[in-house]
Amino acid sequence: MSSFIFQENKLRAFTESVFHAMGCSEEHAVLAADVLITSDLRGIDSHGVARLSGYIRLWKKHRINPNPNIRIVHETASTATVDGDGGLGLIVAPFAMKLAMEKAEKYGSGWVSVRNSNHFGIAGYHAMQAVSKDMIGIAMTNASPLVAPTFTTERLLGTNPMCYAFPAGKYPPVVVDMATATAANGKLEIAQREGKQIPEGWVQTKTGLPTSDAHALKTGGSLLPLGSDRDHGSHKGFGLSATVDILTSILSGANYGPWVPPFVAFLDPLPDLPGEGIGHFHGAMRIDGFRPAADFKSHMDRWIERFKAAVPIDPDQPVIIPGEPEAEAEKIRRVEGIPLSEPVVKDLEALAELLGIEKL
Amino acid sequence: MSSFIFQENKLRAFTESVFHAMGCSEEHAVLAADVLITSDLRGIDSHGVARLSGYIRLWKKHRINPNPNIRIVHETASTATVDGDGGLGLIVAPFAMKLAMEKAEKYGSGWVSVRNSNHFGIAGYHAMQAVSKDMIGIAMTNASPLVAPTFTTERLLGTNPMCYAFPAGKYPPVVVDMATATAANGKLEIAQREGKQIPEGWVQTKTGLPTSDAHALKTGGSLLPLGSDRDHGSHKGFGLSATVDILTSILSGANYGPWVPPFVAFLDPLPDLPGEGIGHFHGAMRIDGFRPAADFKSHMDRWIERFKAAVPIDPDQPVIIPGEPEAEAEKIRRVEGIPLSEPVVKDLEALAELLGIEKL
Repeated sequence: MSSFIFQENKLRAFTESVFHAMGCSEEHAVLAADVLITSDLRGIDSHGVARLSGYIRLWKKHRINPNPNIRIVHETASTATVDGDGGLGLIVAPFAMKLAMEKAEKYGSGWVSVRNSNHFGIAGYHAMQAVSKDMIGIAMTNASPLVAPTFTTERLLGTNPMCYAFPAGKYPPVVVDMATATAANGKLEIAQREGKQIPEGWVQTKTGLPTSDAHALKTGGSLLPLGSDRDHGSHKGFGLSATVDILTSILSGANYGPWVPPFVAFLDPLPDLPGEGIGHFHGAMRIDGFRPAADFKSHMDRWIERFKAAVPIDPDQPVIIPGEPEAEAEKIRRVEGIPLSEPVVKDLEALAELLGIEKL
Repeated sequence: MSSFIFQENKLRAFTESVFHAMGCSEEHAVLAADVLITSDLRGIDSHGVARLSGYIRLWKKHRINPNPNIRIVHETASTATVDGDGGLGLIVAPFAMKLAMEKAEKYGSGWVSVRNSNHFGIAGYHAMQAVSKDMIGIAMTNASPLVAPTFTTERLLGTNPMCYAFPAGKYPPVVVDMATATAANGKLEIAQREGKQIPEGWVQTKTGLPTSDAHALKTGGSLLPLGSDRDHGSHKGFGLSATVDILTSILSGANYGPWVPPFVAFLDPLPDLPGEGIGHFHGAMRIDGFRPAADFKSHMDRWIERFKAAVPIDPDQPVIIPGEPEAEAEKIRRVEGIPLSEPVVKDLEALAELLGIEKL
């Protein structure tokens, strides 16, 4: 598939103009664009500008509030609950992360549960905010239901990602940013476009049978929790996903399980929701709440060096430190630009037309 | 294999007498025994009294300090680092968990990283301490290296468990207590005893090939991270295990990666260790730091009910809520007693003889 290269600044300006057209304030448009552009820079193409038209479709259906009154509804010294007022998760999550970091500054750690929000982009963006302040950052979100817990055919959980970001010394931060499903939907879409089969263990059919059909979700199938099947620990992937669901939503008052509102505008939320919007969970811990940051970082460097030096199974494939490929991609794309596939470019052109803004 | 049933109290008294013989104080012996007996009651036989002789062997080698001066070496309002002074993890971890809960009581949350400790039993015991106080409990530990990160043949990580415990209303707490490897060593031992093969994806051979040989660890093989292979997300299992290693040990000043001291007495620690002992990480968050506990618990009940009502693939195998089988086992074993296999009973008899204490 052909792709087109765009310089970061150009793509950023376009993205800001989309959020302006949605009615976001200047500050919010800049922030929301930064979340998406950072995702594209880091090579996580599924969560960057490719998502713009989806946000617009939800906004058109009045399911995203472009001018939210984001507020703290409950707090203690080191904890809080935030109501996102139906705003973009791209705006609400940074508010919550900032609050967590302010609390960490004062009390050692800060933990913020968020309700009434929307899709927040990559978890890594939010968790990494803490790293430059010598804090450990944590970010989680629940998501619209696509994953069946072990032993059932029902989609009761989202791909519910969790992210932990740790500062290092001379190396990029270690960023563990992962969906708690074996493979997220983006991987299925790549196989669909290429007309390929997928490995068994990513999805099951409507009746719970193994399949390698990349289109199985369209016929009632479901994604599988990390571990794929019970023999290989899918109950652990289910447990992790449940943990995210509870911390993000039962703790905050957001929707959970099958009630999480769909990210796609063509599906309506279920009736009689138990909560408000989707939920996030953010944490920040000051390293020097535990030991001097310099000591921590020099041991992180030693950890990274030892793992990178591990004997490889295949000499051409060394161990990958979590967050390293994304840091590499960012270094390259900041200079060489961000490649977008033809369908994404067409999608953004159509979006520009729809909103009456300048094309890319 | 034949098994023998012991009443909880009898097994508890015996276990306390073992810790007394080791030189523990009365208070510590009672506490350490409670951790092990709780494991046996909850059906986690691999982490109960079956471990006693292993602790004694380490103590005999002066690798466990029976009278540790456990102390806080660094703290802020909501964070702390504890030095376990080489004590039993069964004693050190409860100290840290109590501290985390005291901080949560005052500041909303408490987070304690622990160095210079030893094997702490089941993570669930520690995390669950928080639940009766209407807190969310978190416990993690690193462990001696048996797991190879994705793409390497080297054992650089332990099975590094993480546990999250959440109070519910009318149901038992939801307890997600999981090794971050696909299958922990205990499952291999069961297959070895029964002369059975194991599913591919649990271990790899010395050269990194798939195998179903339950004895592969003895010939240089290694356990695999949750996900089993890269296609099925083993980089996520590696990321989770790395997260545990960093939170428990780089944050506290304990040993990490391949330097974590072996749990078995016949293997010596590596030279030039980068830290002290093994590390734990404990957290507690007051539910009412986020929302009223009664609201949280009623939504937990609704979550549990919805997941239990999920359409099963096999009508005879409903969805299992994390922590439910353990709560069931505990209910039964408190009344009917704790079954121990013949090798464990023999092991405890030999231990009694060695220590000159009354047999079971």
